[in-house]
Amino acid sequence: MQKENLLTGDRPTGKLHIGHYIGSLKKRVELQDQFNSFIMIADQQALTDNARNPEKIRNSLTEVVLDYLSVGIDPLKSNIFVQSQIPELNELTMHYLNLVTLSRLKRNPTVKNEMKEKKFGERVPAGFLIYPISQTADITAFKTSVVPVGEDQIPMIEQANEIVKTFNTTYNQNILYKSKALLPRKGLGRLPGTDGKAKMSKSLDNAIYLSDSPDTIRKKIMSMYTDPNHVHINDPGQIEGNTVFTYLDAFCSDTDQLLKLKNHYQKGGLGDVKIKNYLNEIIQSELEPIRNKRQDYQNNMDYVYDVLKKGSENARSIATDTLFDVRQAIGINYF
Amino acid sequence: MQKENLLTGDRPTGKLHIGHYIGSLKKRVELQDQFNSFIMIADQQALTDNARNPEKIRNSLTEVVLDYLSVGIDPLKSNIFVQSQIPELNELTMHYLNLVTLSRLKRNPTVKNEMKEKKFGERVPAGFLIYPISQTADITAFKTSVVPVGEDQIPMIEQANEIVKTFNTTYNQNILYKSKALLPRKGLGRLPGTDGKAKMSKSLDNAIYLSDSPDTIRKKIMSMYTDPNHVHINDPGQIEGNTVFTYLDAFCSDTDQLLKLKNHYQKGGLGDVKIKNYLNEIIQSELEPIRNKRQDYQNNMDYVYDVLKKGSENARSIATDTLFDVRQAIGINYF
Repeated sequence: MQKENLLTGDRPTGKLHIGHYIGSLKKRVELQDQFNSFIMIADQQALTDNARNPEKIRNSLTEVVLDYLSVGIDPLKSNIFVQSQIPELNELTMHYLNLVTLSRLKRNPTVKNEMKEKKFGERVPAGFLIYPISQTADITAFKTSVVPVGEDQIPMIEQANEIVKTFNTTYNQNILYKSKALLPRKGLGRLPGTDGKAKMSKSLDNAIYLSDSPDTIRKKIMSMYTDPNHVHINDPGQIEGNTVFTYLDAFCSDTDQLLKLKNHYQKGGLGDVKIKNYLNEIIQSELEPIRNKRQDYQNNMDYVYDVLKKGSENARSIATDTLFDVRQAIGINYF
Repeated sequence: MQKENLLTGDRPTGKLHIGHYIGSLKKRVELQDQFNSFIMIADQQALTDNARNPEKIRNSLTEVVLDYLSVGIDPLKSNIFVQSQIPELNELTMHYLNLVTLSRLKRNPTVKNEMKEKKFGERVPAGFLIYPISQTADITAFKTSVVPVGEDQIPMIEQANEIVKTFNTTYNQNILYKSKALLPRKGLGRLPGTDGKAKMSKSLDNAIYLSDSPDTIRKKIMSMYTDPNHVHINDPGQIEGNTVFTYLDAFCSDTDQLLKLKNHYQKGGLGDVKIKNYLNEIIQSELEPIRNKRQDYQNNMDYVYDVLKKGSENARSIATDTLFDVRQAIGINYF
């Protein structure tokens, strides 16, 4: 039986951190055996709100592909490719734009939230406003069945499926496929920043990167947010909202030992330094082989570019196929 | 000295009529010696508000190219091409969309008016709202200096030049060119419909088509709107707003004779039938050779498609060139 196509990826706006690792990268490594995986470095999507800062995107591209390879995404199983190298996506976007109203675009909850966060209002770049349509182009181009996303991205899949339906109905052809969201396991949502804030980000300097040095990792862990009321070692400590324990939940595979630590911490008598040291050990041993592999790939950038080129060629070939069908359905294949 | 590039064209939403002929086609025939002309059949632009009626666009495509050839647009001098055959335009549009805000798009007076006419409101198809950006892609792709437009289209050129400036400044490269509007001669604006309404349109059935039979032309002229107060032959008649005289102004080259007729009509004693017959003679003799040439081309559709194919190839080659520069400026030419 042929494997179903899966599409996922990242906007290249910086190196990837352990939030990406826990939230999606590890999962991708598992999924690449089960699905025909397309992993897109969404440089064009990143440009929709970084048009004036293209160097950031350009520089992040290689960082991201190095992160992919070092965590074990295998180019023989996954097509790692660059969005801008698939020009067919632009034309698909343009055709879909005719099937969506401005009011529908503005109603997309994901975009609405992001516009609020970025304080865009009506000064939103048009390219950003329409990025769900460009995402629909991505999803349909690669005949995607499955899109791993967070809860907050479900409206994007819904909008894509709406367009698929409208297109197929309008042009009376069943050529575009609906896709379904693949949600993260319960409890494995977004990893908070080292400062306890909901989101890791470069500007907040609260992220541990896959490429961080052992020293940097250690420093970041030792300054992590714990329980502000756990002042003396003997005070009872709180687990919930305690970033060190949230990280341990994500990284520690010895659940018995973790449960013991939690009980001890809650009773009192277990110091923050001790649990931080324990977390540090675990994270260091998880990231060390990744960092080493990363260094190997970095010494062999010709190979890395070759991965991107081949992946982009594979991805382009299926997108070309989809666009051919779409043009035929609309009737603009004159010669 | 190399000729400057000129871009013009039509949305293929029906056969062309004498309004197009007087307003632009005749002028194009003159201009094709002076400029390197790109004449675009804007099927994709037409789809922005006809996505659910693609047959209309498809069927109109050949009508429009037949009209072009029959009025004397010479494929050896003018690149007649089809917008959808230049996929590079889609990618240019996508890059420019990141440089324009939603509020700026909504402020475009041309689009604002058209949205009002079409009663779109917020239910405007996103593709229609952004068509000025797609038009900017057209203009810049072909390194256009000159765009023949009506007064009402000036804001489109302004918006295009704004994007050119933003792009060149943002990416610090002088690769896109500004263009200027070429306005119609004074008094040679839009020809009204045969019913006196401002605009010829298929739905109002008030247009004389270049491909109309002599009989149809005659019937349309004999039922034209004149001066509703000119009831008896001996009544003084009015010239202004009298569609027959507006048409005579556009078509009659014998200005002495026309002046005499006007004076006679204004004094009274000249019947509507007489001036209609005179107009009919003139229009028939202007349209007869066009109709005959049209028939010849229609009997040779292989040649016609070949014109479109070659024109599209030429146009694509320059668009490819522009897109190459644009990608380089943004920095997404990785391999």
